[in-house]
Amino acid sequence: MINCPKTKDQIKVTQINFKKELEAASKSMIMIHDPKLLIKLIIRMIVRKLGIKHAGMVIYEADQDAYVLGISRGEPGLKIPQGFTRFDKESPIIKFFVTKEYKALTVSRNAIVSDDINRLIWREGVLDKTGGNGIRKLLHDVDEQMRMLNTTACVPAYYRHKLLAILLLGEKNDGTKFEQDELDFFAALASDAAMAIRNAQLFKGLEAEALRNRQLFLRTILVLGSTIEAKDSYTRGHTERVTKYALAIAHQMKDNGSFEFDEQFFENLYIAGMLHDIGKIGVPEAILNKKGRLTVEEYETMKLHTTKGVDIVEPLKLPQVVLDGIKYHHETFIGSGYPQKLKAEQIPISAAIISVADCLDAMTTDRPYRRGLTKEEAIAEIKNNAGIQFRPDVVKAFIELCEKGIV
Amino acid sequence: MINCPKTKDQIKVTQINFKKELEAASKSMIMIHDPKLLIKLIIRMIVRKLGIKHAGMVIYEADQDAYVLGISRGEPGLKIPQGFTRFDKESPIIKFFVTKEYKALTVSRNAIVSDDINRLIWREGVLDKTGGNGIRKLLHDVDEQMRMLNTTACVPAYYRHKLLAILLLGEKNDGTKFEQDELDFFAALASDAAMAIRNAQLFKGLEAEALRNRQLFLRTILVLGSTIEAKDSYTRGHTERVTKYALAIAHQMKDNGSFEFDEQFFENLYIAGMLHDIGKIGVPEAILNKKGRLTVEEYETMKLHTTKGVDIVEPLKLPQVVLDGIKYHHETFIGSGYPQKLKAEQIPISAAIISVADCLDAMTTDRPYRRGLTKEEAIAEIKNNAGIQFRPDVVKAFIELCEKGIV
Repeated sequence: MINCPKTKDQIKVTQINFKKELEAASKSMIMIHDPKLLIKLIIRMIVRKLGIKHAGMVIYEADQDAYVLGISRGEPGLKIPQGFTRFDKESPIIKFFVTKEYKALTVSRNAIVSDDINRLIWREGVLDKTGGNGIRKLLHDVDEQMRMLNTTACVPAYYRHKLLAILLLGEKNDGTKFEQDELDFFAALASDAAMAIRNAQLFKGLEAEALRNRQLFLRTILVLGSTIEAKDSYTRGHTERVTKYALAIAHQMKDNGSFEFDEQFFENLYIAGMLHDIGKIGVPEAILNKKGRLTVEEYETMKLHTTKGVDIVEPLKLPQVVLDGIKYHHETFIGSGYPQKLKAEQIPISAAIISVADCLDAMTTDRPYRRGLTKEEAIAEIKNNAGIQFRPDVVKAFIELCEKGIV
Repeated sequence: MINCPKTKDQIKVTQINFKKELEAASKSMIMIHDPKLLIKLIIRMIVRKLGIKHAGMVIYEADQDAYVLGISRGEPGLKIPQGFTRFDKESPIIKFFVTKEYKALTVSRNAIVSDDINRLIWREGVLDKTGGNGIRKLLHDVDEQMRMLNTTACVPAYYRHKLLAILLLGEKNDGTKFEQDELDFFAALASDAAMAIRNAQLFKGLEAEALRNRQLFLRTILVLGSTIEAKDSYTRGHTERVTKYALAIAHQMKDNGSFEFDEQFFENLYIAGMLHDIGKIGVPEAILNKKGRLTVEEYETMKLHTTKGVDIVEPLKLPQVVLDGIKYHHETFIGSGYPQKLKAEQIPISAAIISVADCLDAMTTDRPYRRGLTKEEAIAEIKNNAGIQFRPDVVKAFIELCEKGIV
């Protein structure tokens, strides 16, 4: 559009087309919440549709407290060279646009264009306005930096008086100079783009915060699950191993088509695995660490850890899948387990999976009252107990994992 | 602007003014992340600047799976009556705009206007296109609903073919009918507004998720802190009380100008308070619950809870303020404490605060080896120990709290 010869009428056509492009672009911008993708789309539009040889955009990144080249696009050899990617506040172009007195020199232009610079350097009054010779040196530095960046025009974008971004434009395809109406258009585009990018950055920041808090929660669950190991000296690493086995079994059950578990299920199973023995916090160390067989009474106390576990995590309002895993991981397929003697499909699937994982680790670990089995013995034991102690489809997945050598 | 008499030239003026308003509105929309505020601004603009007697907007709310009246504005008695605030998918206006065959009837108009309805009802082909008499009944219902809502024109806004919102417009101030170019403008505005509102809703949703995850983390910290009480039967409620006292003291220190604590400090102090004794998880129950004085060796084991606490929470990568509070809450002002015999200002402020809160609760609680003091005795004891066991400015704030009757 830019390369039309300019008659009065045709300038109008250009403006209208510009406006159309701008409106279309603005519309799509708001719903794109990935800053990088957004910048890519804007730069692509400028280069493809508006007849510029190449373009780039530097954007303020709060975490680096610097302006960073978001993306650059154009003919090879013409686009902004790799390596020029970070501009701190002392960088000439940035300094020029953030310093009130200097940027005032280009307010009417909405931009700074190579040809303006020499004119500015020798313009009457520049020295007076900016109070010294520094501006001439700065303008020389800006000129040099623009040459290095293959840039013909720099268009700043502000939001609430803060420099958010600078659009760096290469030459026009038709070789003509930028007209004022074109610079005005690019200023409007840069401003819209900067706001959309700021929106996307805030969005991304918030997403990261939500994720960070989620991970902090999950790590706290891990610490909570590990507290029991400080009491029960024979279970070092038990909680994490059981969780690992349980997740592996669940993935195998999904892979072999037994269940359609979603991502949320796996996270819940992780939490249930980490907390399955948390109720043991309420069981005396004398019972947990007893070197002989437990008496009937002591065993009854030990069994309470399943329901105590659910009580302990009550304030967390955890999903039912998690509570089920904690409460019912000692139920058995034939209904001889505790605390509720549930049978077969009555036992929630999270509990049935943790049950196999828990027994595998318990059997292969030395305990106060017996030595651990070998892995092969434990696998055989679990296989033999399919449909008795364990749910058959869980055992099936477990055996498949053993055959693959994963467990 | 709308009430200009329409000559060909003046239509152009109207369009340009509309466009200007639209661009100005769109620009401000993207950075407003509160959906309610955003809707308010849009409706205000329509009523004030565009010459409509009143306007409202119904917006899809995912959590209710319904369209809800965001806001309505205009002259009293003319704006949309209270009570008409929720429109489910069977509501006539909603049904009309979400049903492909029906909405096709108004595609060229970008809206539905009262006067159109009768025309549509009797228009040839309506029955054929929509395959039944249902459309006539629906149009009658739409007409009636629009009357009840004092609405002359309904302008739908779609994003990716999904109905996001409907702009409900009252009469124009000049009493003339809506022209097609005006409806086109409102359609563009409604579409921009709907996207901005969707953006704001997503933003708000993400903010809520981040907060939810943070609270889940903090509640898990509470559960983690409480686990120690399952082992140490004499400390029921100790952790929560200490945290409460510590926070009260810190707020008083901020109020009396001793320290400029920020919100983050209070959250960290909460976490430190909840976890200050977490290291006791690693101390044998026989020592924690011993009914006589501890031997020197047992006391040394007990003292380890400060450093063990920091080890236990290591995976959480908690802020230094929290770790300090856990590690140094048994240091004393004169340097006779543990684990590092820190003195005076060497002791981090979070630890110095928890120290007073911890001793207050310990002194007023019955322990295996002694009965608790009365509150008055404990307060006197703390006062006497300012500058010896405790940091004087912390004791000062504590005494102020006691005088206010808060502790």
